[in-house]
Amino acid sequence: MSTDETPRITLEQFDGLIRETVPSAGDHPYSIISLGWGEAVLRADYRDAHLRAGGTLSGPTMMTLADAVLYAAVLTRIGYEPLAVTADLNIRFLRKPAPRPLIARARLIRLGRKLAVGTIEIATEGEQHGVLVGPLVAHATGTYALP
Amino acid sequence: MSTDETPRITLEQFDGLIRETVPSAGDHPYSIISLGWGEAVLRADYRDAHLRAGGTLSGPTMMTLADAVLYAAVLTRIGYEPLAVTADLNIRFLRKPAPRPLIARARLIRLGRKLAVGTIEIATEGEQHGVLVGPLVAHATGTYALP
Amino acid sequence: MSTDETPRITLEQFDGLIRETVPSAGDHPYSIISLGWGEAVLRADYRDAHLRAGGTLSGPTMMTLADAVLYAAVLTRIGYEPLAVTADLNIRFLRKPAPRPLIARARLIRLGRKLAVGTIEIATEGEQHGVLVGPLVAHATGTYALP
Amino acid sequence: MSTDETPRITLEQFDGLIRETVPSAGDHPYSIISLGWGEAVLRADYRDAHLRAGGTLSGPTMMTLADAVLYAAVLTRIGYEPLAVTADLNIRFLRKPAPRPLIARARLIRLGRKLAVGTIEIATEGEQHGVLVGPLVAHATGTYALP
Repeated sequence: MSTDETPRITLEQFDGLIRETVPSAGDHPYSIISLGWGEAVLRADYRDAHLRAGGTLSGPTMMTLADAVLYAAVLTRIGYEPLAVTADLNIRFLRKPAPRPLIARARLIRLGRKLAVGTIEIATEGEQHGVLVGPLVAHATGTYALP
Repeated sequence: MSTDETPRITLEQFDGLIRETVPSAGDHPYSIISLGWGEAVLRADYRDAHLRAGGTLSGPTMMTLADAVLYAAVLTRIGYEPLAVTADLNIRFLRKPAPRPLIARARLIRLGRKLAVGTIEIATEGEQHGVLVGPLVAHATGTYALP
Repeated sequence: MSTDETPRITLEQFDGLIRETVPSAGDHPYSIISLGWGEAVLRADYRDAHLRAGGTLSGPTMMTLADAVLYAAVLTRIGYEPLAVTADLNIRFLRKPAPRPLIARARLIRLGRKLAVGTIEIATEGEQHGVLVGPLVAHATGTYALP
Repeated sequence: MSTDETPRITLEQFDGLIRETVPSAGDHPYSIISLGWGEAVLRADYRDAHLRAGGTLSGPTMMTLADAVLYAAVLTRIGYEPLAVTADLNIRFLRKPAPRPLIARARLIRLGRKLAVGTIEIATEGEQHGVLVGPLVAHATGTYALP
């Protein structure tokens, strides 16, 4: 039934939760583009602190974004849950991203009682706000442990 | 010959390099405990911003630390190099770390012309400064691409 | 130009190559469903030797399949190359597969001069030959080193 | 108490279990070198079918070995259990192994109620039977799901 597939968290709830549970998220100017059923899209603007030698966004900036967008995708299925924690993250950096905002999209590929597994694609934002363009700059897969 | 196995970067050089190339490293109160030949040990104190719900250190805090200590281990072999970049990182979170400083140890397991691969162990600091104790809180493996 | 995007290996060439370079492939009754530009779909029938306790296909059966289909996707771009070798493989087993043929689909997400990176999805074959249905039983990402 | 740290499976039990639960293990001439508490060492001889172009042992041969030795390490802690299954495996191939027997050593780094996590090192056998020498040819980490 389609009413079952309404995301169990709103943009506002996720925004509040990530700021409350992960205080360093405040360093990252994230905005949520969309939440679906087991899917989420986040936009991450950057600050000069996220650049590294060569003028590209740093690896930890993309790891933190991958972790956050997967968290959002998990919450679309299980609802508001501050105690879901990352169990593992595998990230591959594919190209040096230009110093522009990033768009990250996560999709769950398995949701069990104890673990949620998803894939994450990260690319540079195109000319349209919130739209991912061009080749991926990073790809990740990760697992959240559910309380 | 043992003189060949002197680390090709000093504590001071690494400290300067990480602050210069990865400005966000300034958010993390790192200190280098030791540098060997293909090995490095880092200590990471924390700030409240690195805590997450439940009072434990956040996943991104440990990812950033894993990435930094592996970078140090790479530089002990190739010398000062701002343009070595992370190609991939696989991290597994094993236990929720107490809100105490972390010790991370990286060791290279392969150094080629283009890629360096290493393992990273992260544990909570014991009562002695800079000494890793107890079970691992995270384990990672990663690759740096060499310019 | 679209003529540039003709796969640089044919089904017959890949079939010959995998049998010649990886003799154990003969244990796995593979057939190639399709080859695209940076994409490949393989079907793997199974033998009783690939089952494990509980009547499901074994982990190594799926790892071997993931490795083979990624190899095919790489060859669609670089052409016939017996000396491309796997540099790493990260595989996640999502559900126990029923004892039925598997369909695996690989897509390159980066092709450099030295490394090719791709994602692999594995699911159980549906009622139609060569068509992947239902939820994924495994997901992998991997890298091939190019000679 | 040290009596608590007797491996909960014997060499003979593991040998029987792997042949029974994973019939394809019969293709791999494994022998168990030692079992400890959360640790196992396996030796894998090879057949021509495990060689690939260039005269090296194939990737799937090492993946299968990594999976088997981690299984042995898990069983040293939980005892005889045909239904423990691989949840994920991350393997990195570091050097092309010579066509000689391989030695693989697994160590658990976490054992929970539902999941066991371990690291695996693979190297070529030295002149002494069962002894790992030289640089690693592969490194892996993996998770088993416990029933």
